[in-house]
Amino acid sequence: MRTALVIGTGLIGTSVALALAGRGVTVHLRDHDPTRAATAAALGAGTDEPPEGPVDLAIVAVPPTRVAATLAEAVRNGVARGYLDVASVKGGPRRELEALGIDLGAYIGTHPMAGKERSGPLAATADLFDGRPWVLTPAGDTGTDVLNLALELVALCRAVPVVMDADAHDRAVALVSHTPQLVSSLVAARLTEADETAVRLCGQGIRDVTRIAASDPTMWVEILSANPGPVADVLAGVAADLDGTVEALRALQSADEEKRRGGTAVVEDVLRRGNTGRARVPGKHGAGPVAYEVVAVLISDRPGELARIFADAGRAGVNVEDVRIEHATGQQAGLVQLMVEPAAAPALSAALRQRGWSVRQ
Amino acid sequence: MRTALVIGTGLIGTSVALALAGRGVTVHLRDHDPTRAATAAALGAGTDEPPEGPVDLAIVAVPPTRVAATLAEAVRNGVARGYLDVASVKGGPRRELEALGIDLGAYIGTHPMAGKERSGPLAATADLFDGRPWVLTPAGDTGTDVLNLALELVALCRAVPVVMDADAHDRAVALVSHTPQLVSSLVAARLTEADETAVRLCGQGIRDVTRIAASDPTMWVEILSANPGPVADVLAGVAADLDGTVEALRALQSADEEKRRGGTAVVEDVLRRGNTGRARVPGKHGAGPVAYEVVAVLISDRPGELARIFADAGRAGVNVEDVRIEHATGQQAGLVQLMVEPAAAPALSAALRQRGWSVRQ
Repeated sequence: MRTALVIGTGLIGTSVALALAGRGVTVHLRDHDPTRAATAAALGAGTDEPPEGPVDLAIVAVPPTRVAATLAEAVRNGVARGYLDVASVKGGPRRELEALGIDLGAYIGTHPMAGKERSGPLAATADLFDGRPWVLTPAGDTGTDVLNLALELVALCRAVPVVMDADAHDRAVALVSHTPQLVSSLVAARLTEADETAVRLCGQGIRDVTRIAASDPTMWVEILSANPGPVADVLAGVAADLDGTVEALRALQSADEEKRRGGTAVVEDVLRRGNTGRARVPGKHGAGPVAYEVVAVLISDRPGELARIFADAGRAGVNVEDVRIEHATGQQAGLVQLMVEPAAAPALSAALRQRGWSVRQ
Repeated sequence: MRTALVIGTGLIGTSVALALAGRGVTVHLRDHDPTRAATAAALGAGTDEPPEGPVDLAIVAVPPTRVAATLAEAVRNGVARGYLDVASVKGGPRRELEALGIDLGAYIGTHPMAGKERSGPLAATADLFDGRPWVLTPAGDTGTDVLNLALELVALCRAVPVVMDADAHDRAVALVSHTPQLVSSLVAARLTEADETAVRLCGQGIRDVTRIAASDPTMWVEILSANPGPVADVLAGVAADLDGTVEALRALQSADEEKRRGGTAVVEDVLRRGNTGRARVPGKHGAGPVAYEVVAVLISDRPGELARIFADAGRAGVNVEDVRIEHATGQQAGLVQLMVEPAAAPALSAALRQRGWSVRQ
């Protein structure tokens, strides 16, 4: 791939352009708002001048509702040898393109599983896709040329290609991304009318469950509107389980021992299925669930404490895989949880103790 | 307070005993399993010999279902001047004690908001309650003496006392602890039958939402069984919202534009209420939601990288409030997100860049 045209210079489009430009591809930038294309160009993502002839690959990075129309226009004008989009849903855009009577031999739908809280070209980075899954959804009529162009793009962005059927992709993101978003919002929504005293009792559990409830509603309305069927299907499954759980909890209030036993069995089943499902969530390295051992160390809240602890861990030859800092409420001491490979935990505990740290069991 | 009797030497009881013993209180330890009391004693939590006369305070740290019977026996035997329990529910045990005809003037129900993944005396630490809320639920018949003994205990454990009505407490923990646990399990349960390819697409959002779904089912069945009514009430509210959301998503599939508009409004309302509720969750310092600025830095996965980065942050005089490490899938580089006070972020970015770190915008 020597030339590319990025249509839509938001976070994703500009990040793709930065990655390609950084690896020697000549990138042309286009946006319905020319100042956004100019911003992306100023960041080093390419040029906002139009290409003189067809480019190798056109990358359509516009919101889901605009994908089909934008692609159709690009294909009709023959701006590229191959075409792909990067929208978060894949079934609908393909069906819209088919309805428009566009020849789809040079098109492939794709979805890089990357993003961040901020949007727009200024939030873009060349390494946004480093190591992330990038879904490709070839169909029967997808040409080999465009599939290879897409694979080259994914490689240039240092992402990991994952091939899926378009509708299977939409069901998968409904399950692993869209449903968790809505459920997080639903739990957080319960807090809107809670007493201040109740809110004071929040701990790390609800903090984690509701973190993504802080996401941008406008962006999420757009994502969910493009994938309503699969999300409704997964949520209906959650709703059925939830109704069963409410009923089981009511049974636990019964004077009838048999009813209580039945309620206990349902609640326990939900918790155990939760264990099983959670065990399938891949760790941050993407290589299946990683069972790190936690070494917990008390620290004061002064600058330099974390440096000292990581220096001591490094001297012990131990690689810290993840860190969580838990500050105690309203005071200046905290607990650092160092996640390490289980085999390394005893050595790390011993080394830190020897250097005077207060290590918890 | 000079003498105490801890009945039940699990995680909470032994941690209380360690805190009291460390501050000069003579602590007696009792457990239905004498080897657990002996283990706690060996850890320095006190003596497993019975006291010769009544102690100042008896702390009942047994599972919720055993609280009333254990307390009733202790009160009848006059083992202490004051009595309290530390169970995670407060309304039920009080009503059971009333039904048993026990004089409750020397009793107060309490609940320290602290815990950890592991249980038993070996998991205990003297600092488990440092800075954590500790709920006290005095009633009309609660004597001043036992209230003051409870306040002294909370102070000796370095926790923060929060006074609440017993039933208000149970509704509060249903909202901020028990409901998030069940909802996390329900989302994770959806993954049990997912395709392996779908599971590969999991990102940080679902990872956070389902973290506590890994919790111990046996312990949680016990907690939920002791508080079924309030949890069912909160979950029923979530269920009603959820049903409305499923219906709204189905409306988004409609050909009727007005129906689609109605569906969009409902989905957006859920997301916005989620924003509002999430904003009420206190930060780790417990002083209201803390809006830290994130400074993101690319690092390699070698030991010592984190030490270098924290040392450089320390040299810049910046205190890192929280850390999150994001490893890229399947490779050896990662992204460290340093959370700092907003005012400190520009200085930290500049200092790290100057020292050669790759800092993201």
